[in-house]
Amino acid sequence: MGEFELIQRYFAVAPCAQGGDGVVRGIGDDCALLALPPAEQLAVSTDTLVAGVHFPAVCDPFLLGQRALAVSASDLAAMGATPMAFTLALTLDQANAAWLEAFAKGLQQMAAACTLALVGGDTTRGPLSMTLTVFGRVPAGQALTRAGARVGDLLCVGGELGDAAGALPLVLSQRQAVAEIAEPLLARYWSPRPQLALGQALRGLATAALDISDGLLADCGHIAKASGVALQIEAARVPLSAALCALAGHEHALACALSGGDDYRLAFTVPPERLSAVQAQWPEVRMIGQVLAGQGVQLLDAAGLAIEAPRGGYQHF
Amino acid sequence: MGEFELIQRYFAVAPCAQGGDGVVRGIGDDCALLALPPAEQLAVSTDTLVAGVHFPAVCDPFLLGQRALAVSASDLAAMGATPMAFTLALTLDQANAAWLEAFAKGLQQMAAACTLALVGGDTTRGPLSMTLTVFGRVPAGQALTRAGARVGDLLCVGGELGDAAGALPLVLSQRQAVAEIAEPLLARYWSPRPQLALGQALRGLATAALDISDGLLADCGHIAKASGVALQIEAARVPLSAALCALAGHEHALACALSGGDDYRLAFTVPPERLSAVQAQWPEVRMIGQVLAGQGVQLLDAAGLAIEAPRGGYQHF
Repeated sequence: MGEFELIQRYFAVAPCAQGGDGVVRGIGDDCALLALPPAEQLAVSTDTLVAGVHFPAVCDPFLLGQRALAVSASDLAAMGATPMAFTLALTLDQANAAWLEAFAKGLQQMAAACTLALVGGDTTRGPLSMTLTVFGRVPAGQALTRAGARVGDLLCVGGELGDAAGALPLVLSQRQAVAEIAEPLLARYWSPRPQLALGQALRGLATAALDISDGLLADCGHIAKASGVALQIEAARVPLSAALCALAGHEHALACALSGGDDYRLAFTVPPERLSAVQAQWPEVRMIGQVLAGQGVQLLDAAGLAIEAPRGGYQHF
Repeated sequence: MGEFELIQRYFAVAPCAQGGDGVVRGIGDDCALLALPPAEQLAVSTDTLVAGVHFPAVCDPFLLGQRALAVSASDLAAMGATPMAFTLALTLDQANAAWLEAFAKGLQQMAAACTLALVGGDTTRGPLSMTLTVFGRVPAGQALTRAGARVGDLLCVGGELGDAAGALPLVLSQRQAVAEIAEPLLARYWSPRPQLALGQALRGLATAALDISDGLLADCGHIAKASGVALQIEAARVPLSAALCALAGHEHALACALSGGDDYRLAFTVPPERLSAVQAQWPEVRMIGQVLAGQGVQLLDAAGLAIEAPRGGYQHF
């Protein structure tokens, strides 16, 4: 099968390639064309997933398609951007029809959930990997960045953390668990739900934001550095799911939440007087700490004593 | 070395990351932010290069950096877009400082030549490959597409073809040649010059355009299909370089030009009365055929007889 037929068969005809908000020209020319409403800016993010590094080399292609797009779309959520479109650069060691069909379906389902249109990409032969570039729009000056946290702000997260990291032994079939425990954890690994609506709602409310991909501590470190402040996290306030605690025990569950990564939930800072407005609409949002003068990230135990943080963040090299 | 230091050291401080036309926010947050002038649209293209497939696994990283960006930027030229920015998703099997430094320099030099600012990306561990996504802007409705060729238009190319394909035996060290022959051919493989200025100049003049990456015949087939016309190419008019003919002989040189790919020169259709205006400014532009009613691509020999075209275009699968 030729490269062009391959793309045509599995991707160009997908509903997610039918064009959407702002898509002037999608798949099929040298470039896609996007239009922005007046006074809006384009938000762009690129992420690569490599087989054997970011996902098991042998896995369900439908789930992989979902996960690949969710990981990238989460960056749009972190900027408060309204999703528009994405490109897919897919490198495959072979063109397997059943694999491609399932992968395209998973991608398509996540694209529909995120209202993202597939507008272009590239298909190449090589070791399995994929690079997705996502596009969103945001009113000029209203993007959520990492740089705006102010002393006195509260630090919040968009929900329970650590599930995806805790699920890894299940993903890698190193461990088994009963369905009530395994299913929600595996779903958080394979089908993270980018918090796009929350991100957009936080425009004008949050002072800084990002999505947690490298672990809470490492990512809070990015906010602290970009904003020139210190972040203090109360360990007892970090929300953990019942499934994760049941699988891993409380102590390891907390470690997953602090340093595990792959959460794709938002962390953000917000002035105290705005928290109730956020939580009224987003009850899963939890306050986990506050912004102080200084630098770095400080972790407090239940007694309010500073504890040494586990070394945080996934390091590729 | 951590991923963040790696990116910081070699890419974020490069001149090409200092922001450019339309770059509101570059490297360092969850998304880059781009702004468009009123009534302009964003042109986007993504290309992946895989070691051992699109370039030799062992090669000069400086040249690779140049080539990777040029290949992508050529798609902006094909749409008549003004270059703005690009992202780099780089997958490396190891973080080798000397390799990275040279790669970043080559990338940077091509970025400066193309006026493209590096605004983001991803660095991952895995088999060597890279996906670049390029961004340009074009006045609404003025993008050059593949779909506008009309019966009676002339078919033109932006200069000599086949050099990069002809250079492959030199690139792969399967053959050697004297410097006067090897150097210009290797330069056309490793440092193609995207015809960005020509593409912008063709806005409002050309009726259809693309960049030749899969071989003249295959790419002309894309114009013919998208425009619903036939393209007739006179083989004797296809411009070939002296170096290519010296290395490969005329017959093989023509085959490289027709089916070799990797040219990254523009092919476009233009009404006859506009050709002289184009060639006055771009003397390297050559008329090689015409647009007829019908479908597909027809190749004529010097006597005007139809000859069977070699099977065209690089097929990954």
